Amino acid sequence: MFESAELGHAIDKETFKREVPKLRAELLDVQYDVLQKREFPVVILISGVDGSGKGETINLLYSWMDPRHISTLAFSAPTDEEAARPYMWRYWRALPPKGKVGIFAGSWYSQPIADRIEGRMRRSELDDRLEDINRFEAMLVNEGALVLKFWFHLSESGQKKRLKALEKDPRTAWRVTKASYDRLKTYDRLQQVAGHVLRVTNTAKAPWIIVEGTDDAYRSLTVGHIVLDAMKRRLAQKDMAQVPVAPPILPAIDGRNVLTELDLTQSLAKKVYADELAKYQARLSELVRDPRFTAGRSLVLVFEGSDAAGKGGSIRRVAAAMDARQYQIVPIASPTEEERVQPYLWRFWRHLPRTGRAAIFDRSWYGRVLVERIEGFCTEADWLRAYAEINDFEHQMADAGAIVIKFWLQISAEEQLRRFKEREDTEFKRFKITDEDWRNREKWDQYVSAVCDMVDRTSTGLAPWTLVEANDKNFARVKVLKTICERLEKALKDDGKNSEQ
Amino acid sequence: MFESAELGHAIDKETFKREVPKLRAELLDVQYDVLQKREFPVVILISGVDGSGKGETINLLYSWMDPRHISTLAFSAPTDEEAARPYMWRYWRALPPKGKVGIFAGSWYSQPIADRIEGRMRRSELDDRLEDINRFEAMLVNEGALVLKFWFHLSESGQKKRLKALEKDPRTAWRVTKASYDRLKTYDRLQQVAGHVLRVTNTAKAPWIIVEGTDDAYRSLTVGHIVLDAMKRRLAQKDMAQVPVAPPILPAIDGRNVLTELDLTQSLAKKVYADELAKYQARLSELVRDPRFTAGRSLVLVFEGSDAAGKGGSIRRVAAAMDARQYQIVPIASPTEEERVQPYLWRFWRHLPRTGRAAIFDRSWYGRVLVERIEGFCTEADWLRAYAEINDFEHQMADAGAIVIKFWLQISAEEQLRRFKEREDTEFKRFKITDEDWRNREKWDQYVSAVCDMVDRTSTGLAPWTLVEANDKNFARVKVLKTICERLEKALKDDGKNSEQ
Repeated sequence: MFESAELGHAIDKETFKREVPKLRAELLDVQYDVLQKREFPVVILISGVDGSGKGETINLLYSWMDPRHISTLAFSAPTDEEAARPYMWRYWRALPPKGKVGIFAGSWYSQPIADRIEGRMRRSELDDRLEDINRFEAMLVNEGALVLKFWFHLSESGQKKRLKALEKDPRTAWRVTKASYDRLKTYDRLQQVAGHVLRVTNTAKAPWIIVEGTDDAYRSLTVGHIVLDAMKRRLAQKDMAQVPVAPPILPAIDGRNVLTELDLTQSLAKKVYADELAKYQARLSELVRDPRFTAGRSLVLVFEGSDAAGKGGSIRRVAAAMDARQYQIVPIASPTEEERVQPYLWRFWRHLPRTGRAAIFDRSWYGRVLVERIEGFCTEADWLRAYAEINDFEHQMADAGAIVIKFWLQISAEEQLRRFKEREDTEFKRFKITDEDWRNREKWDQYVSAVCDMVDRTSTGLAPWTLVEANDKNFARVKVLKTICERLEKALKDDGKNSEQ
Repeated sequence: MFESAELGHAIDKETFKREVPKLRAELLDVQYDVLQKREFPVVILISGVDGSGKGETINLLYSWMDPRHISTLAFSAPTDEEAARPYMWRYWRALPPKGKVGIFAGSWYSQPIADRIEGRMRRSELDDRLEDINRFEAMLVNEGALVLKFWFHLSESGQKKRLKALEKDPRTAWRVTKASYDRLKTYDRLQQVAGHVLRVTNTAKAPWIIVEGTDDAYRSLTVGHIVLDAMKRRLAQKDMAQVPVAPPILPAIDGRNVLTELDLTQSLAKKVYADELAKYQARLSELVRDPRFTAGRSLVLVFEGSDAAGKGGSIRRVAAAMDARQYQIVPIASPTEEERVQPYLWRFWRHLPRTGRAAIFDRSWYGRVLVERIEGFCTEADWLRAYAEINDFEHQMADAGAIVIKFWLQISAEEQLRRFKEREDTEFKRFKITDEDWRNREKWDQYVSAVCDMVDRTSTGLAPWTLVEANDKNFARVKVLKTICERLEKALKDDGKNSEQ
């Protein structure tokens, strides 16, 4: 969930100074357009960890737009008027009317998250509340509201650093108290609860937008651009009666993402590779014969990656560690005729392994949010709702005991070119390279965006993504095997425990 | 929820014999059209209480359509293949492909309902499962499936009668066993659990269709007509990519409904009226001063009814029993400018009473599914989703301690005409009658349908409708006051208990 928000995104001061006047003018323009049309309200939720710059961002939005048409709503403990009514009453009261912008600093999410962290709310109560919230937000969207939910994230070290920085500056030192440091201690618990809350409420109609909070300039510009873009798009929508889809996901303004941050130069020498490979294959072979696995667990492996990233080679190394009767490799190409007449997830459901078995998917249901998104094989609304549907799907697998491990194999554009050429030159590899592969190469940037969105929106506690640096095949194969062994070991060890994931 | 399905709906044999050949021919036709187009699958769920004719209906559908393109799926205890996978796997496997009809006899609902009744599943587990189901069905509908969920209902006495009838007929006597009578004993619990399940899963995308199961001819014709109509409408939908709305609600084929069943001749003599009125006003006056009420409860009264049904008079009699500082009468007319720029429920949220207070709504949020539906002030999709939104809204009130009591005041068309004329003749009542009232009269039948749908879809355990026979004003006023007193007494007595409603 928070992968993209721990990269240390930053914008230098010059860029910031250059960008702001333009952004500001545009925001003001679009705000007046929204106001004049009076066709929809803009509901902006600003939430996130302490010290991630929520207040600063709200103040900036105020200074960038016309504050007379913005209302900011902060909620602390309910007043007695509020406590005497249904808990959503205070938020209903505060909804901005059509044409206006309402910024919720602390929203219907704050109380349940705090209550859960401090143990005042049981998990099932929390989940009931989250379903209420989902229905409430769906209603808002159906009624035409533009809903933007921001979550400002800080890594643990980022949060510490930020506290230090605030302390140093005499203008902000007062904001750091003992309580600030106390909250640092509950960092893990907050991440766990917030991760769960964000996943459950990351709906197609009102998805979360996660922003790294460390760098003021980056955070402010990002929020400004997203608000601007979403308002513009909504204004451009012709038929207002038509239920709008969620705002699109914009790439990070500093051009950095989970893929650009990978160190693709990592490699393994031949000798080390041979040793490691043997070691992890032996370990895997033992793990899948462990009675705790065969009697209560199953294994679902998902391999996705750039063309020519080496999925096949990795899959063969994994399969080699298992008995052929125990696993099934499921290569996913275009759907068959039988599959085309079913919901898109159907063809994956049918291949789910039973207890004690493994299924290795060579490409997978993620095609929906990768190739189908990019090639326009499905509508925007379709692939947007797919994130939640996929999370549900994997959640159901995990509930039934499956260990779900997902790999994205990444190579650089140069390495891909080298491999393509090599394949064309090598007789027996020629079938592996088609015109389509060359066409896909032209869509490199689109794929990068789609992959980053996919990782952010479907990396869940139960089924996280592992990004594999695959320029060096040896390095990639060992990382894949090692990851599988570690996840399996952890799962078997954890069995019987329950967690917030 | 089951109001319309306890009226003793029946169709005589002649009508049945006359109708079936036509229905059959049409069903077959439309089945082939669906098959040829191969654009969507038809998913039919047949569920309900024992002995309500599920099997018979499925057999009939088979004999009316081409059985080669129907699959029926019955589910009992999971096979070991099924038990080793996520619980939805067996249903995914069984989904009909586009162009075909799949009839689920026993569906994803059967197991959770049984588990809950027999105490194998906690309430919170059930609710989690129901949310899974809601998301699953939303996915099916988003993927284009036509989903028809039937629930066959029998009243308790109806179920007994049916068992006796089956026993009498030597061809069916074998079907009645000791277990059949045992299940009768859990009737109340089943109704409670089923009522909850049906309410939570009565979504705008896949609403329940409740059919009285007592009379074979009525039940079969009803299901046949609904299936036919829904398939026709879906075929007629031009843009298949557009997410379809739920199938429309057809009026009962025997013309009977909760309104036609009311005995409008009931009346109270003047003397009796005066006594009863005084008695219940005194009781109400005491109840709202009870510390259990003032410290923990609030009262939400909803008055809806035909024009000139006497809402105002009833409201005055209720208000007279309370201190003016304790209640607020909220007359609902067209939304104000301020209200028009908010979600439609906003103007009701703002008037919710705090603890210890009462709000009396003279017309209400039900305008959405009455006048707005009939006059086309909102789209079909809007009023269809409103049922669930309204149930949510009332649920949240009830959760916060509100006692929600809803009255529909019904008069006959003749009585309405008499009152209209009287108003025109009486100087000081003339303002009460407008051209619009006369226009509404012409839409009498449309209002009847809308009211029946409303009662069926929003009469929940926490906030049931009370239908008031209002041809005689005295009778109506006393029934209203008595109902309020009884609900209040029960609520104050029950406080602290928790139930499935």
